[in-house]
Amino acid sequence: MRGYTQDKEDYLKRLRRIEGQVRGLARMIENDEYCIDVLTQISAATKGLQAVSLGLLDEHLKHCVAEALTEGGQDADEKVREASDAIARLVRS
Amino acid sequence: MRGYTQDKEDYLKRLRRIEGQVRGLARMIENDEYCIDVLTQISAATKGLQAVSLGLLDEHLKHCVAEALTEGGQDADEKVREASDAIARLVRS
Amino acid sequence: MRGYTQDKEDYLKRLRRIEGQVRGLARMIENDEYCIDVLTQISAATKGLQAVSLGLLDEHLKHCVAEALTEGGQDADEKVREASDAIARLVRS
Amino acid sequence: MRGYTQDKEDYLKRLRRIEGQVRGLARMIENDEYCIDVLTQISAATKGLQAVSLGLLDEHLKHCVAEALTEGGQDADEKVREASDAIARLVRS
Repeated sequence: MRGYTQDKEDYLKRLRRIEGQVRGLARMIENDEYCIDVLTQISAATKGLQAVSLGLLDEHLKHCVAEALTEGGQDADEKVREASDAIARLVRS
Repeated sequence: MRGYTQDKEDYLKRLRRIEGQVRGLARMIENDEYCIDVLTQISAATKGLQAVSLGLLDEHLKHCVAEALTEGGQDADEKVREASDAIARLVRS
Repeated sequence: MRGYTQDKEDYLKRLRRIEGQVRGLARMIENDEYCIDVLTQISAATKGLQAVSLGLLDEHLKHCVAEALTEGGQDADEKVREASDAIARLVRS
Repeated sequence: MRGYTQDKEDYLKRLRRIEGQVRGLARMIENDEYCIDVLTQISAATKGLQAVSLGLLDEHLKHCVAEALTEGGQDADEKVREASDAIARLVRS
């Protein structure tokens, strides 16, 4: 079980929609659609992925990190460092 | 024909890989994989989409915008404004 | 003369405001203010810098790149490549 | 006392450097320097601010959020929500 388990169906639905958007992007390129329209669609897919990331990270802090911190010890430090690294990757991507 | 037409096959290949990554993300969630690992995969897909955007934008400037500017007139201004708006959306997403 | 020259006073005013925000950030840290409040202020300064970037880039496309493209030749390619590189740096930062 | 208090001097030094970079940006605009060079300098200042944000957020998780979670209760939930909101602002800016 993970922090996101109770919202699993919601995440799966969002990812299927994003998968469809990426497939739609390929179709747009295939059909030589206008570059700017393709870019607009890419922004939509990117925003979708970003929202999934922020949701998962929030659940991760609320569950996995919170549990580790409540128990304390070395695992707590490890979990916070890991979360900080994931945040840095998100911010920089 | 579009600015990206000559690299179409390359873009299609990259988009299929990204589509596969997004499908892989759904599988990770389905299997309750560790949140941080899911986040790492999302970053990879996002970076992939970003690279496609930057490539398309570069081709767009080199071809569509360049042509409009060479011909001059109102369409040139319009094309530059449109490109600037697309850049702003990219930077902010 | 540069693409931004006619809006110079406006850019200078915005940069002075951002400089003041950064100085305010140091004061917040000096006074041990709450981390989240400091982060909110940093976001404001970052957004300010981003808006200046997008403005300068728009002027750059409208003036420097447009001129080079109108004249054509090797300088035109160079200017577009340079602009694309600057956009990539902006998007990735 | 805050999560960042023990690294205060380091943060102040970094913010003073960023303040100097922003002042340098105004000087570049004043002197009509080349747009692309100004953009490169803005990226440097933005990256500096981003690094300060990520550092503060890491300390915040390690200290303020960790303490609230160890004590538990409503304040813990509040602190995690607040941190998630700050992360979302960072990712979107």
